[in-house]
Amino acid sequence: MESEFKNRVCKMSRLINGSSPVSRLLHSSRMPGFILYGARGSTNTDRVRLTLAEGGLSNTDYELVLLNLQQGEQKSKENLARHRWGKVPSISVPESGFTLFESRAICKFLARKYSIPLVPPESDLEATALFDQAQSIETSYFAPAAGTIAFEKFAKKFMGLEANEAVVSDALQSVNSFLDIAEGLLQEPGRGYMAGSQFTLVDLFYIPLVLRLFACGYGDVITNREAVNAWWNHCISRPAIKKLLEADKEAMAAAMAKR
Amino acid sequence: MESEFKNRVCKMSRLINGSSPVSRLLHSSRMPGFILYGARGSTNTDRVRLTLAEGGLSNTDYELVLLNLQQGEQKSKENLARHRWGKVPSISVPESGFTLFESRAICKFLARKYSIPLVPPESDLEATALFDQAQSIETSYFAPAAGTIAFEKFAKKFMGLEANEAVVSDALQSVNSFLDIAEGLLQEPGRGYMAGSQFTLVDLFYIPLVLRLFACGYGDVITNREAVNAWWNHCISRPAIKKLLEADKEAMAAAMAKR
Repeated sequence: MESEFKNRVCKMSRLINGSSPVSRLLHSSRMPGFILYGARGSTNTDRVRLTLAEGGLSNTDYELVLLNLQQGEQKSKENLARHRWGKVPSISVPESGFTLFESRAICKFLARKYSIPLVPPESDLEATALFDQAQSIETSYFAPAAGTIAFEKFAKKFMGLEANEAVVSDALQSVNSFLDIAEGLLQEPGRGYMAGSQFTLVDLFYIPLVLRLFACGYGDVITNREAVNAWWNHCISRPAIKKLLEADKEAMAAAMAKR
Repeated sequence: MESEFKNRVCKMSRLINGSSPVSRLLHSSRMPGFILYGARGSTNTDRVRLTLAEGGLSNTDYELVLLNLQQGEQKSKENLARHRWGKVPSISVPESGFTLFESRAICKFLARKYSIPLVPPESDLEATALFDQAQSIETSYFAPAAGTIAFEKFAKKFMGLEANEAVVSDALQSVNSFLDIAEGLLQEPGRGYMAGSQFTLVDLFYIPLVLRLFACGYGDVITNREAVNAWWNHCISRPAIKKLLEADKEAMAAAMAKR
């Protein structure tokens, strides 16, 4: 069922781990391939940055423009023209004028455009369907509850507000129920990842909010579950992801030391 | 940009409005192409039924198995084997044993499998990205709020419970804010539909919950906005959709008369 996808993954992995043709391709043009409008500390922006890291694209291949969310730059006229809901991230392609928002849609677009082998090809109907199913589960069942915890226990701290502990408790219960089911799913024979036997963008989509759960002191929801914990360790030990997360950690430590 | 998609739409429309080759193909086999497990009154099931109607597939092409949600049949061992979260809808393909859940993933799988021309081809990168963006908007910004109203004002009535009016009021405010932005989006030149100039599955995804808003007495959120109202009228006047909605209305009236 997933054999075509698997072949493509192997082929593309060799390509990317080799001399990075994607990177060379983009360097040959003076105009950046695209501009990513994001923000520091935005889990939705980090979803796109992780995808770019997996594809071997660096800051010299595209331009990263950081908006200051605390100053409300996401609601500026310029950003509203790119993103009608006044959020980050969004991208624009200078060459064609094409713009796009919604982090998962951006990740999928970039994966297809730069042949990052983390989305099954449409010709593999069943693998594509299982990818869509897994994405729907992540977006509808996991992200709202995990995002609520991240907002209450992380974002509110920076806004000088108190967390609503009743809201946190409800959301934590949802995350736990979700992970109980995910544990069973990941234990199925031939599984290991959220959309099947291979690491895909859907696994990557989880990373920023799971990291936020760890940062808020709730990492045990992951580490207490055997299959979920194994899945998580596979995700964050991927070389490109590991490298980006370590760089982010160092940048964060340097910023904190300056305070 | 969407030209390839447009060509495919025209070609497939002729195919489907002609002698229904999809239907003939499925009739030639004794085994149904797939089984749809759903429930009466489930907006998620209706999303799949609308997709099948658009594709010209009828109840003789597939088997529809209705679960009784009030009796908890969605939590039966059999259904949990198909859908780990114990919900409807799901499908199973007897020939291959393939199963799938999450209504939007099912709709996309069936559209690709039966060449229902409501999903842009992956080869059209930008049309696919705008489809993904539009689906993300529908799923993350519209459906949770509209679904909350449907639960409070519709589902709870059948459960003998009172609606929580404060929750309804918050959700209604979200739906109104959402539709204010959608109004601007639909007014863009060359627009008219949620993912561009063509009717796609994303527009169809809205239909069951918008109908539920009308049923709860909140239809003015649609009719009060010019572009949103025009979009809605285009959606529900599509022949296949109109036919299905009229049949559902008649079936509902007959069921009410029997009570």
